[in-house]
Amino acid sequence: MDGNAMTPKASFRNDYSEGAHPRLLQALAQASAEQNAGYGLDAHSTRAAQLIVARLGQPQAQVHFLVGGTQTNLLAISAFLRPHEAVIAVASGHVATHETGAIEATGHKVLITPHVDGKLTPDGVRALLAENTSEHMVKPRLVYVSNTTELGTIYTKAELQALRALCDECGLLFYLDGARLGSALTAEGNDLSLADIAALTHAFYIGGTKNGALVGEALVVVEPALQADLRYLIKQRGAMLAKGMVLGAQFEALFEDALFFELGAHANAMAQRLQAGLKAAGIALLIHSPSNQVFPILTHAQIEALAGVTSFERWSPHSDTHAVIRLVCSWATREDAVDALLAAIGHLVR
Amino acid sequence: MDGNAMTPKASFRNDYSEGAHPRLLQALAQASAEQNAGYGLDAHSTRAAQLIVARLGQPQAQVHFLVGGTQTNLLAISAFLRPHEAVIAVASGHVATHETGAIEATGHKVLITPHVDGKLTPDGVRALLAENTSEHMVKPRLVYVSNTTELGTIYTKAELQALRALCDECGLLFYLDGARLGSALTAEGNDLSLADIAALTHAFYIGGTKNGALVGEALVVVEPALQADLRYLIKQRGAMLAKGMVLGAQFEALFEDALFFELGAHANAMAQRLQAGLKAAGIALLIHSPSNQVFPILTHAQIEALAGVTSFERWSPHSDTHAVIRLVCSWATREDAVDALLAAIGHLVR
Amino acid sequence: MDGNAMTPKASFRNDYSEGAHPRLLQALAQASAEQNAGYGLDAHSTRAAQLIVARLGQPQAQVHFLVGGTQTNLLAISAFLRPHEAVIAVASGHVATHETGAIEATGHKVLITPHVDGKLTPDGVRALLAENTSEHMVKPRLVYVSNTTELGTIYTKAELQALRALCDECGLLFYLDGARLGSALTAEGNDLSLADIAALTHAFYIGGTKNGALVGEALVVVEPALQADLRYLIKQRGAMLAKGMVLGAQFEALFEDALFFELGAHANAMAQRLQAGLKAAGIALLIHSPSNQVFPILTHAQIEALAGVTSFERWSPHSDTHAVIRLVCSWATREDAVDALLAAIGHLVR
Amino acid sequence: MDGNAMTPKASFRNDYSEGAHPRLLQALAQASAEQNAGYGLDAHSTRAAQLIVARLGQPQAQVHFLVGGTQTNLLAISAFLRPHEAVIAVASGHVATHETGAIEATGHKVLITPHVDGKLTPDGVRALLAENTSEHMVKPRLVYVSNTTELGTIYTKAELQALRALCDECGLLFYLDGARLGSALTAEGNDLSLADIAALTHAFYIGGTKNGALVGEALVVVEPALQADLRYLIKQRGAMLAKGMVLGAQFEALFEDALFFELGAHANAMAQRLQAGLKAAGIALLIHSPSNQVFPILTHAQIEALAGVTSFERWSPHSDTHAVIRLVCSWATREDAVDALLAAIGHLVR
Repeated sequence: MDGNAMTPKASFRNDYSEGAHPRLLQALAQASAEQNAGYGLDAHSTRAAQLIVARLGQPQAQVHFLVGGTQTNLLAISAFLRPHEAVIAVASGHVATHETGAIEATGHKVLITPHVDGKLTPDGVRALLAENTSEHMVKPRLVYVSNTTELGTIYTKAELQALRALCDECGLLFYLDGARLGSALTAEGNDLSLADIAALTHAFYIGGTKNGALVGEALVVVEPALQADLRYLIKQRGAMLAKGMVLGAQFEALFEDALFFELGAHANAMAQRLQAGLKAAGIALLIHSPSNQVFPILTHAQIEALAGVTSFERWSPHSDTHAVIRLVCSWATREDAVDALLAAIGHLVR
Repeated sequence: MDGNAMTPKASFRNDYSEGAHPRLLQALAQASAEQNAGYGLDAHSTRAAQLIVARLGQPQAQVHFLVGGTQTNLLAISAFLRPHEAVIAVASGHVATHETGAIEATGHKVLITPHVDGKLTPDGVRALLAENTSEHMVKPRLVYVSNTTELGTIYTKAELQALRALCDECGLLFYLDGARLGSALTAEGNDLSLADIAALTHAFYIGGTKNGALVGEALVVVEPALQADLRYLIKQRGAMLAKGMVLGAQFEALFEDALFFELGAHANAMAQRLQAGLKAAGIALLIHSPSNQVFPILTHAQIEALAGVTSFERWSPHSDTHAVIRLVCSWATREDAVDALLAAIGHLVR
Repeated sequence: MDGNAMTPKASFRNDYSEGAHPRLLQALAQASAEQNAGYGLDAHSTRAAQLIVARLGQPQAQVHFLVGGTQTNLLAISAFLRPHEAVIAVASGHVATHETGAIEATGHKVLITPHVDGKLTPDGVRALLAENTSEHMVKPRLVYVSNTTELGTIYTKAELQALRALCDECGLLFYLDGARLGSALTAEGNDLSLADIAALTHAFYIGGTKNGALVGEALVVVEPALQADLRYLIKQRGAMLAKGMVLGAQFEALFEDALFFELGAHANAMAQRLQAGLKAAGIALLIHSPSNQVFPILTHAQIEALAGVTSFERWSPHSDTHAVIRLVCSWATREDAVDALLAAIGHLVR
Repeated sequence: MDGNAMTPKASFRNDYSEGAHPRLLQALAQASAEQNAGYGLDAHSTRAAQLIVARLGQPQAQVHFLVGGTQTNLLAISAFLRPHEAVIAVASGHVATHETGAIEATGHKVLITPHVDGKLTPDGVRALLAENTSEHMVKPRLVYVSNTTELGTIYTKAELQALRALCDECGLLFYLDGARLGSALTAEGNDLSLADIAALTHAFYIGGTKNGALVGEALVVVEPALQADLRYLIKQRGAMLAKGMVLGAQFEALFEDALFFELGAHANAMAQRLQAGLKAAGIALLIHSPSNQVFPILTHAQIEALAGVTSFERWSPHSDTHAVIRLVCSWATREDAVDALLAAIGHLVR
C-alpha cells in the first residue's frame, strides 16, 4: 500500500486474506464448465466426501460441506442438542466470543470456563458440571474445543483422550472446531492424525477457508446417532448451496493427495520462521505457538509504527506500556514477506 | 450421460447446474491472487455495491452480499421483524414451501394466500389482514413476492405499485425475492427496471447464483429504518464470508457492464425458443411463461421416456394421465441443446 | 350490566368468564395455609398426578401441571420435535390460528389442511405427507387434534384410532389438545374415555381452565421416549410455577372424585338446552354441536340487538345478511340464564 | 415433619412455601364468583394497574400481569431486544444462572461480569462494553439487575442512578427484576421508592409470588418506545391467562392500600430477627443482608443436624469444614418459628 523503505510487505492479519490455492481454482474452473447436480448431490462432493472418509477409519462417518466456521458450528450444535442443553467451552472459544451469539440465536447457552493456554481441560468441564446440576439450570451436553485453539496452541492425543473419556463418563458429546485443523495436524509437537480426531470426537469439521479454499468447511459426523436428517437442517439454516460442487471440487483437490496437509505445513513453517526471528530479536511472546499464529508483545509505539508497514490484529492489552498483536501466516505467505516483516520489526525494536 | 440416438443432451433441471460465467471465474481468479480485507470489507465488495447502487437511484441503499436465496430470505426477514410479526406470501412462494421452514425457524409465521398465476394480489393481502386482527393472532407485517415467480411469471410495474400502495396504507414492509431477477427484468413484457424495484420495495435481493455466479446474492436494503446493525445479524446467522471478495468480485463482474442483464436475457431467449417449439409440437403448457422456466404437460409415458434423455424436475400432477414437468434454461444453455431437446420431445409425442 | 327488560343475563362469551368451582377454591385456600415444596414437587401435585394416572391404564404416563393452553401446546410441541420437524393441524386448529404464532416462535412450522366439521381426517394428513417429501420442505412429524374441536364437535374412538394407525404407519407423533376435554368426554355421542385418549395418543392435555379451575392444564405424556427432561423445558419456557401447589390442589379436587366430568357434563347440558331452544325458535346453526359451544346464525340486526343483552363472540361472516355467533356455556352457567337468553333471542327473532 | 425436642419448625427454604395472604385469597374468591372479561381485560386487572401506576409518577407506564419471574424476564427481554442484542448481568444474576437458559432460548446471549455483594457496578458494565465492540460479538443492549439481589443485598438510589446514567450514555436499556422488590423497598437502609424505581429504569417488575400472592408478577414498562404490541408477545409466549382476573384481583388487594409493603416489611423483620440471633450466637455470615434472606456459615455437621429440624437451601461451599446455607423468611413467617429455629441452632452450635 505505501512505499516506505521497510516495505512492500504482505498482510499478516489473518489466514483468509488470500483466495484459493491455484489447484483449487483450477478444479473449480473445470467443474464450473460441467453440468452438475445441485445441492451437494454432485459427483465432486460425493468424491470429496469419500476421500475424506477414506482417511478416517470410520466408514460410517457422514460428511457435509458447508460455507464457513460460524455456519458450521451453529448448524452442528443446534442439530445435536435439545433446547435445554448447553455447550461447554473455554472463555476464549470461538463460539463463546466471536460468533455474535450465533449459538444462543439457535436457543442454546454456552457455558464458559477459563482456558489453560487456550485449551479446555477436564477440570474445566467438571467445574461446569458441578455448577449445573438441576432443572433450574441448563444441562451441559456438548463439549466444544478448537484445534488449533484461538491462541495457536494444539491439543495432544492424550488431552483429547482425557476429554473424550470424561464425555463418555458424563454423557456428553464431544465436538471439535477444526477451522485451523490443517495447521494443527502439521504443527510442531502434534501427535494426532485425522483418524485420531475422528476416533476421539462425535463430530468435527475440517476447515477449508483458512487452508487454501475460497470457502468451505467439511463437517464430519462420526456418531451415527447424530446423523439423521442433517440435510433438512442444512437447508433450514440457509447453508445448502445450490451449486454444491463449489465446495466439493475444492475439497476434492485438497484431499485427492496431501495438499491439505502441505498447505497447513507451509503456513506453520512461515509462522515458525517468524516466531524464531522475533525471539532472536528479543521480542517477548504471549505464548509459544507451534502453529500459524504468533503473538508478539510490543510497545504501543512499536505497534503504531508497525501498522504503517503491514496489517495485523491488535489482540489484547498487556500492560500500561505494551500490548499483544497477532501475526498470522497462511498457505500463501512467502518466505520473503516473512523476512521483510522481520527486518521491519528489527528496525523498530533497535 | 447416456448415448442413445436422441442425445447427447444437457440438463434442463434448473438454473444452477452450471457454474460461473467465464468472466466471473476470471475475476475470481484475479482477486484470489491478491490480499484482500476479510468479511466483505474488501475493495471488490465495496465496488460491486457501488456499481449496484449506481443503478438504483437510491443513494442511501445498503448492499450486502450473501451466499444463497434461503439464507438471504431468512436473514432479511428475521432482521426486519419483531417476534410476533408475520410474513404474507402466496402458497407457492419459496419461503412458504421450499425452505424447510427457515423463516419459522427464526420464529416467524408465514401466512399464505392463493396465488394468481404465481403472483400475490392486493386482494390476497387484504384477505389475510382481515383474518388476523387481534393479539391472539400473529401481526401481518411483511409482504413477500418473488420475481420471476416460482411459475416463471413476472410482475408488472402496476402490480408492484398496487402492492406497495397497500403496504403503505397498512403499515407493511414490501420485500422482493429476486433469485431470478435477472430473468425477470429481461423477460418478454417486463416494464420494470432495477431502479423501479428499488423504488417500490423496502428491500429486495438480486440473485447471482441463478444468473452466472458460483454463489452469491446481493441483498439491497433500500429503507434506512431497516439498515441498522445488519452486519451483526449476517455474522450471527453464519452468513458472513471470511473471504467476502468471493462474492464481491463476482458481482463486480456482473455489474461493471450489463453482463447481469445479458445473462438473464440469454436464459430467457433459450427458454422462449423451447416454449415456442413445444407449442409448435402441440404440447400443452401449465402456464405461458415469459421467462426462463417452462412448464409443459406430458403423459406419464412421455415423462418417463424423456427422463432417459435429459434431466428435469417433475412439477405437479395434472390429471390421471398427465403431469407437469419443469424445464429450465440458464445463462449457459446452448441453442443446440434446446433444439436437441425439442427434437427428442418431438420424437416422443409423434 | 344493563337493566333492560330482557335481562339480567350472564355472559355466554366463553368458558373462562367465571373463576373456580367452590370445591377448588376451598382446596386452594386449604393448601395456601400450609407450607409446601416449590416448583410442582409438592404433595398436592404429586397426588393429583397419581389420581389422573390411575384413570389412564398407563402407569408409565408422566403428568405435568401447566398454566394455560397455549403454554402447554408450545411446551409440548417444542419439547417433542427437532428443529426441522413440523406440526400437522386443521386450518381452524388452535395452534394454527389463535396462539399468535407460538409454535412458530419455537421454530416449528404448522402445516394446515382443511377441516371436516372441525376435525382432522387421515386424508388431510396424507395430503400434507404427499406434499412434503424432501429436505427442501419441513418434515411432518406431529399430528395435532383438539377435542372438542374449535367448532364444538367431538372425535369418535374410531376416528382417533384411524389417525393413530396412520401415525404409527408414517412415524408421526399424535398429540391431543384437551382444553375442552371435560366437555368432549361427557358430550352427546362420545364413546371415548380418558383411558382411551391415553391409549391412542403419545401425549395430550386435560384442560382445567375451561372446566372449573382458576388456571391449570395437566399435560400427560404417555410415550416414555418423550418424557426425558421435560422439567428442564418447563422451567426454560417460564412455565414452572414456584407455588406449584396452586395447580396441584385444584386438579386434586377435580379428580379425587368425578367432579371434572360432572362440570363438563353440566356445561354440555346447558349448551344443549340452549341449542335445542334455538332450534325450536327456528334459528339456523352453523353446525350441530354435541358439546358446550353453540353456533347460531343470525341477521346482523339480531346480532346487534343481542349484543345489548348478553356477551358473546362474533364467529364468522355467513352471508350478506347473516353472520355466525358463538355462545358458550360453562360449569357455572345457570339454567335460568340459558332460559333468559332463549327468551331474549325469542323476542328478537319474533 | 419429625417430632424431636427442637421442633416443630417451619420451613425456611424459600419465600414461596406458603400460599397467598388471606386478603388476596378472599379477593380471589370474590372475583371468582363474578363473570369477568378474559385475557387480562377484566376490571380487576385494570384497577390493579391503575393502583400501581398511581404510585409511580409515570402516567404513561404500562402494566402487564404475568405468572412468574422467569416468564416475565424472558417475555420482557425478548420483546425489547433485536436478535443480536445481549443482556448484561452479574454472574449470580437470576437470568444468568437459574432460568435454564430461558433468555438464550429466546435467542439472546447473557454477558456476565463479577458481582460486588451481589450487585452490578458501572465498572462491570464498562468492562463488558469494552470487550464487545464489533459485529463479530453480540451488541450489549440491556442491563439487568435484581433488587433485592440474589444475595439479599439492595441497591441504593445513588447506585441505580449511576447505572442509569451509564445506560443513557451508552444507549443501553435498564431493566430491574423485582421478584423480591417488596422486601427491597422495605429493607434496612433502603432509600428507594416505587416511583424511584420507575424513574430510573425503562422497565421493571413487581414480584407478587414471593410477597403474598399465589402467583403473579406485575411487569411495568415505563419507556413508551418499549410498549408497542406487548400483548401479542405475552400471548405468543403462553403468558396470557384466560382468567386474567386471577392476577388482577390479587394485585388489587396488594396495592389498594399498603399491604404489598407491609408483607415485605414483615418478611424482613423476621429475617433480621433471625440474622441478629445468629450473630448473637457467634455464627458467621456470608454477607450482611438487610432483607429477607440470611446466609449463615455452618460446619457440615451442623448443617446435617439442622436438616433434621427445618428445611433450607444449601447455598455454596465455603471451606473444607464449612458451607453456606440460605434461610428465607416470608410474609407468613411467624416470630415463634424464628425463635424456635434460633433455639435449635443455638443447641447445635453450643
